[in-house]
Amino acid sequence: MSLVRIEDLRHHAGDTVTVQGWVTTTRSSGKIAFCVMRDGTGYLQAVFPKAEVVEGAWERFATLTQEACVSVTGVVREDARAPGGYELTASDVVVTAPSVDFPISPKEHGTAFLMENRHLWLRSRKQVAIARIRSEIEQAIHDFYYERGFIRTDAPILSGAIGEDAGELFATQYFDLGQAYLAQTGQLYIEATAAAHGKVYCFGPTFRAEKSKTRRHLTEFWMCEPEVAFADTNDNMRLQEDFLCHIVGRVLERRPEELKELERDLAPLQNVTGPFPRITYSDAITALQAQGSDIQWGADLGADDETALAKAYDKPLFVMNYPKEVKAFYMKENPDDPRTVLNNDCLAPEGYGEIIGGSQREDDYDKLLQRINAQGLDPATYSWYLDLRKYGGFVHSGFGLGLERTVAWICGIPHIRETIAFPRQIHRLYP
Amino acid sequence: MSLVRIEDLRHHAGDTVTVQGWVTTTRSSGKIAFCVMRDGTGYLQAVFPKAEVVEGAWERFATLTQEACVSVTGVVREDARAPGGYELTASDVVVTAPSVDFPISPKEHGTAFLMENRHLWLRSRKQVAIARIRSEIEQAIHDFYYERGFIRTDAPILSGAIGEDAGELFATQYFDLGQAYLAQTGQLYIEATAAAHGKVYCFGPTFRAEKSKTRRHLTEFWMCEPEVAFADTNDNMRLQEDFLCHIVGRVLERRPEELKELERDLAPLQNVTGPFPRITYSDAITALQAQGSDIQWGADLGADDETALAKAYDKPLFVMNYPKEVKAFYMKENPDDPRTVLNNDCLAPEGYGEIIGGSQREDDYDKLLQRINAQGLDPATYSWYLDLRKYGGFVHSGFGLGLERTVAWICGIPHIRETIAFPRQIHRLYP
Repeated sequence: MSLVRIEDLRHHAGDTVTVQGWVTTTRSSGKIAFCVMRDGTGYLQAVFPKAEVVEGAWERFATLTQEACVSVTGVVREDARAPGGYELTASDVVVTAPSVDFPISPKEHGTAFLMENRHLWLRSRKQVAIARIRSEIEQAIHDFYYERGFIRTDAPILSGAIGEDAGELFATQYFDLGQAYLAQTGQLYIEATAAAHGKVYCFGPTFRAEKSKTRRHLTEFWMCEPEVAFADTNDNMRLQEDFLCHIVGRVLERRPEELKELERDLAPLQNVTGPFPRITYSDAITALQAQGSDIQWGADLGADDETALAKAYDKPLFVMNYPKEVKAFYMKENPDDPRTVLNNDCLAPEGYGEIIGGSQREDDYDKLLQRINAQGLDPATYSWYLDLRKYGGFVHSGFGLGLERTVAWICGIPHIRETIAFPRQIHRLYP
Repeated sequence: MSLVRIEDLRHHAGDTVTVQGWVTTTRSSGKIAFCVMRDGTGYLQAVFPKAEVVEGAWERFATLTQEACVSVTGVVREDARAPGGYELTASDVVVTAPSVDFPISPKEHGTAFLMENRHLWLRSRKQVAIARIRSEIEQAIHDFYYERGFIRTDAPILSGAIGEDAGELFATQYFDLGQAYLAQTGQLYIEATAAAHGKVYCFGPTFRAEKSKTRRHLTEFWMCEPEVAFADTNDNMRLQEDFLCHIVGRVLERRPEELKELERDLAPLQNVTGPFPRITYSDAITALQAQGSDIQWGADLGADDETALAKAYDKPLFVMNYPKEVKAFYMKENPDDPRTVLNNDCLAPEGYGEIIGGSQREDDYDKLLQRINAQGLDPATYSWYLDLRKYGGFVHSGFGLGLERTVAWICGIPHIRETIAFPRQIHRLYP
């Protein structure tokens, strides 16, 4: 009698097998009882006909509770109506570990309670579906770049160099070397590896000690950041298009069950094909003003502005060439309008807002040094970064895709806290 | 005339193309000049016949310096002797960005100097080869688990829970919630996701504020940690065998050029096939004592002990069932000898020492609580972790593979500082 995982039951039709897993729900009439169980690889209904089970099994069935760990033995039956296409005609059940008063019952719970019990909430059907889509997206990311000959180069987390906003850093004492900061981005570092490998990317956690309590912010989140030598801002947007289409297509193709579990409307996802519409920041301001907004040229776009802009389109939208002042120091000045930079944000449709920020990088040594000084950053800390403009400077571009925002959008869920197993927010460090 | 990357030249034999990249070396006679250039995707020799180049090109060639960024135009010629199989009969060269006195010349430099210029050292042939092998190993890791139905679940970096040794933590202030620690492992967290998905893994950076200055230690390093529900310590070792064989086989198959660049002896790698030899810790102590060591039962194995043990084998070696006292609190007590735990280390051959540490996890609530208390850890911080034993506790096992040690072994290089783009060591936070 073999131990089989639920995902493998299809190879065992007619066999007697044992399945280990956790009890989801049970119900019973006088002569027949049902247990839906899960083992992480799938869900299975086990049917216990009272007259056919081994001695003691009927009584043991009566003790089953939600999330008890069980070992169920029976014959695998093909059944088109069953989830996964198979069910078990069970002859025995053994409780290998009890579960008394599992905190998360099928009834409604408040978010604070669920977040406090995140380690158990993860076992719920909807959370399982989100996690599986996240995992699929991560593999899709790696496959996309691997197939295109990109070299993955991991950027350091601990660093003396600040990538974005000095006001939003986590710091730690680093032996005798003073403070180290947790990376807000890997970009600066992979500009160096781009000069070694031509096409590179990094993928890892990034950190912002931001006091934002919105549905789009975490203090710890994952980013995918590609960087390409000899690519300008237009090449950069084309890569973003291909990349997003690849990710969305992959989830549609390989995670239909999970999208169904989440009741995701597939039409907006099926519509994600290139090219994406492009507008300049200046056009965006004009459009917002025409909609009655009092935003002025020079101000950064807020979440509401992004939603208002994206509403006019049914695909991801590129907004290009923001004012220099609202963007990071490393973005290349726009030769056609030096008030602006050669950058783009990519706004997801359906109100999800910015999921990508990208730019061509400043490759002029003097201009970059000027920007570093203007920001009050210490040039000595960036001396290695400036070297990239000193020794064979090169046109290069890249972008960062926020994983959690992308998962939220593709899953169609409102808050990014559910897109990562253990979210970190300003008020949450547990579990 | 098209811009072509060196890796794509094979599709352009006979065409006139332009290649952008950096100058590696030049040499010239009176009538013909040669430039080896690189663009990150490969190396290319461009041949300049003085009589055939455009006006000014011969003079521009004379100004080329190491790592100058250039644009070279010419006709692609198939040449079996050339690296990559193609060379360029060049008609023009333009310097797009100069490089004056590039710090890393072909002569020998000291390690301190190279590490200080790590951002430029990365462009050297040997460093490029190591990085490409690392990238291949990372993709091999993801493919291995994806193909086996594992769900990737990312563990948090910032945490209140300590996974390994409280004495070796980086800490940061986390808003009003007190200190957060940088994760030493993702394991505790993915034990929770294993209960949701059955087979999971995490892959990300981990941190040890260890004052070790050895060739096998970094303060920031990457780990791959799988965790499997309903798998015991034997299943765990089988997974490790399959995993290592997969990784080594993949590099042998897909990165032969890079292994050659590193002058790696392939025989020891080709020998990596399962099953791997297994000895207990007690046997290991006996063997070491027989070799003249004065090590006593109960002491942890040091790097020299590992090297001495592994020398007797030509494959990775499992050492099992260490004394409880030298291992982490979460390892399951060995029912056959409660002084020991159901764990294993995996020692790489050729003196590379431990690359994997794994164990079956303690699934008994009371025993785990006892261990947590015995270590002086705060049970409140681990209340969520204890919950996993309260609600449907389950047999489960997992392990952590250290990426940098694995890369060092497969590349055959002595120090792990070269296996990551920007190594972090006790005395190094720059670049």
